[in-house]
Amino acid sequence: MPKTKILTLTEEFKAQDILSLDQFDTPSLIHLFSATLKIKALTQKGKVLDLLKGNIAALIFYEPSSRTFGSFSAAVKRLGGETIEFQNPAQTSSVAKGETLEDTIRTLEAYSDVIIMRHPEKGAAKKAAEAAFFVPIINAGDGIGEHPTQALLDMFTIYEKFGSLDNLTILFAGDLLNGRTVHSLLRGLALFQNITVYLLSPKSLTLSREDKTMFERRGLKLIEIHNSLDMPKNADVWYWTRVQKERFKNLKDYERVKHSFIVTTDLLKERAKKNMIIMHPLPRVGEIENAVDKDPRAIYFTSQIKNGMYLRMALLGLVLGKLK
Amino acid sequence: MPKTKILTLTEEFKAQDILSLDQFDTPSLIHLFSATLKIKALTQKGKVLDLLKGNIAALIFYEPSSRTFGSFSAAVKRLGGETIEFQNPAQTSSVAKGETLEDTIRTLEAYSDVIIMRHPEKGAAKKAAEAAFFVPIINAGDGIGEHPTQALLDMFTIYEKFGSLDNLTILFAGDLLNGRTVHSLLRGLALFQNITVYLLSPKSLTLSREDKTMFERRGLKLIEIHNSLDMPKNADVWYWTRVQKERFKNLKDYERVKHSFIVTTDLLKERAKKNMIIMHPLPRVGEIENAVDKDPRAIYFTSQIKNGMYLRMALLGLVLGKLK
Amino acid sequence: MPKTKILTLTEEFKAQDILSLDQFDTPSLIHLFSATLKIKALTQKGKVLDLLKGNIAALIFYEPSSRTFGSFSAAVKRLGGETIEFQNPAQTSSVAKGETLEDTIRTLEAYSDVIIMRHPEKGAAKKAAEAAFFVPIINAGDGIGEHPTQALLDMFTIYEKFGSLDNLTILFAGDLLNGRTVHSLLRGLALFQNITVYLLSPKSLTLSREDKTMFERRGLKLIEIHNSLDMPKNADVWYWTRVQKERFKNLKDYERVKHSFIVTTDLLKERAKKNMIIMHPLPRVGEIENAVDKDPRAIYFTSQIKNGMYLRMALLGLVLGKLK
Repeated sequence: MPKTKILTLTEEFKAQDILSLDQFDTPSLIHLFSATLKIKALTQKGKVLDLLKGNIAALIFYEPSSRTFGSFSAAVKRLGGETIEFQNPAQTSSVAKGETLEDTIRTLEAYSDVIIMRHPEKGAAKKAAEAAFFVPIINAGDGIGEHPTQALLDMFTIYEKFGSLDNLTILFAGDLLNGRTVHSLLRGLALFQNITVYLLSPKSLTLSREDKTMFERRGLKLIEIHNSLDMPKNADVWYWTRVQKERFKNLKDYERVKHSFIVTTDLLKERAKKNMIIMHPLPRVGEIENAVDKDPRAIYFTSQIKNGMYLRMALLGLVLGKLK
Repeated sequence: MPKTKILTLTEEFKAQDILSLDQFDTPSLIHLFSATLKIKALTQKGKVLDLLKGNIAALIFYEPSSRTFGSFSAAVKRLGGETIEFQNPAQTSSVAKGETLEDTIRTLEAYSDVIIMRHPEKGAAKKAAEAAFFVPIINAGDGIGEHPTQALLDMFTIYEKFGSLDNLTILFAGDLLNGRTVHSLLRGLALFQNITVYLLSPKSLTLSREDKTMFERRGLKLIEIHNSLDMPKNADVWYWTRVQKERFKNLKDYERVKHSFIVTTDLLKERAKKNMIIMHPLPRVGEIENAVDKDPRAIYFTSQIKNGMYLRMALLGLVLGKLK
Repeated sequence: MPKTKILTLTEEFKAQDILSLDQFDTPSLIHLFSATLKIKALTQKGKVLDLLKGNIAALIFYEPSSRTFGSFSAAVKRLGGETIEFQNPAQTSSVAKGETLEDTIRTLEAYSDVIIMRHPEKGAAKKAAEAAFFVPIINAGDGIGEHPTQALLDMFTIYEKFGSLDNLTILFAGDLLNGRTVHSLLRGLALFQNITVYLLSPKSLTLSREDKTMFERRGLKLIEIHNSLDMPKNADVWYWTRVQKERFKNLKDYERVKHSFIVTTDLLKERAKKNMIIMHPLPRVGEIENAVDKDPRAIYFTSQIKNGMYLRMALLGLVLGKLK
């Protein structure tokens, strides 16, 4: 039986491709987060879940990504499933012989129950989903396109901490012009009520005016700032990303602003409230001081990554029809 | 207890190396195909087979092959077994330190219950089988040598469709001079009765005269043609392979004949009967139009690849003594 | 709960990092070897052990090593556990994006219950152990530093053969100046009683004087020889390693001595007693003649490699608290 077409998810995830955050509405997100909470609680109690016993997930990563690859691989195995894994298939597979992406996907679906793909080209995940006749595709990042499970795990982490995604003040810092992670997350947050977003970036790396207008129309309250001195003291979340030196036309501009884009213990003392969390999509390359790691509010290693695994476990359980 | 020597298989596969199609006689093929039908039926009913629980298969692939690698890996795991996997070991292993193939095999057999190997050199599988003291070797392709499981899965696919391998008309198209896949399959078909084979190739790429004589002596009825206009309308199977541009001395020759070596919906309308199947070993690079994929007679994606997995499951079950 | 600090092991292995042979005292070694004997006996009887069911081991190998990689991977799987595997992560992961080793480890520990790491830099395993908050690190080789499980499996192999590690005569041959394997093993042997060690090496590649003094202080009786004619006839163990041509300043020196550093059937006839064993850490590149492999005293393929897997199974069981 061929797959149904790509749908907007409500509460029914079974056999659906997961390509974009835009497929999700608010109830479907809450449904996914509840499933994740359940899976996390059971796993942490030491319960061995065998939901995916007898299932095989194909992981095909055309681009390096230890974090996402490891997270999905562990998610499958923690549920009792198995994987077949292809890293850099351009070097190790029929791709080297000139096979199209579509044919590769048609082959993989013969062996597996779900295909998890990372690809450097925007739109590749959709292409794969259209090629697959029988099994769902999960987009693990398609270049400058989307990386929906990253946004989902970030939202879940905030949801878990505050019990809701409504009525929050969230600060994003970094390169807001080019950062895919931030854009996805903003789209997801726009599905919730009464969210104030501070956007801390160099002036040359603010959100594009189109994106700003679009997010405001969707209901987010946006406040742009350019210096850490303007940071609010009541933010519930600091979501930090990297400002790449290479984005600046001249080095002096970079040197002038860079101190505003590094989380230090001092900055925390001055600007962070007690009951907040510091997040980062990782890898970091210097934009959060190591000394900050010990602060209990820094949860990028202690919760955020692990939540990625739990969220992917829940998503796989739902998509493969093993969870309701 | 050391392994026994490489044997001709009758119905006893246990602990045998699987190196060449020449090991098989007609009853052993039928035995393998019956086991494959059983495994396929059980798996498709959703039964989780644990035949290989506690067993480890070592997959060592000295050459890229996503299709065969994935198929074997999935086969082991669908039977409840585990794999240890080495892709491109020349870059990631002791091979880089100058170890002989024999020593590598002796090492792998210490960790595993069966070794599945692809290697670029003809004869490498036999070398490995002679080196291994305790565990069987399965040849997953040794350069221009053999790739027995490909021929076996092809034969099984025909057997499954027609209930028998006797009394069939089969058309092979492509480069019949150099194509390893075709040669193996012809050797296998020669074990059955009353088979007519049409051989469609450019004149410069016909079967060698030696091979032609040999296959005729083994009982195949061979008819050579060079143009799609001469194709019979009663073929039960079209087995299509690629004609490589590089094989032609001058480009004009290639341009003149190439249209005869591409399967199109038009060609199907003109030359194919209703109850036939179109097969291809894959990957394809243009020699079957994408539009053909939707034709129910096109089974390269829908049955052929999946049958590869089921056949390898049956073979592993038999070789490891878990199936009779 | 954060991990405790790196401890000297007594009989309590649970949750401990395994970084160096120096962590072990005599009772802890005997404890590990007894556990290994038990695991080996059960596995060889065909018992499927599910000690690690529900556990995930992360294998991260920054350097090629088919032998150690395969051994650990098989060890985890033979115990019913699962792995997530990264070979050459510099090419396939966040390492390529400039992530520190510490951050990579913090990420991996979010997905796994134990991390097994090989790294080209001395001290990397200790660094990783300090970075990991929650899960133990097992050193699978850190450059010219240590490779403790190699020394442990070698000691276990001798222990299994002779029922004890006391009162033995052991011959080491090869490059004793640079050989990491030999140095580790000598350190381990020094924990036992009444051990005589013959050291056969070219004059330019003897143990450094410091090392010699150190090992003698620790109680080993050392006898240096430079020619196979001086080999004792009563050695219980020949532990053979490679003399690299490149270590010699001029080729003539190498040519003059090389015959003394190759095990041949003739050398065995002349110098080896009946109830002894020939060991090699592998890979070998010519320093043991292939004809020697058939001698029952040559156990590098038949016992030594396999013991590596069993020892790693026992170690994993102990460290993960599944064995006492």
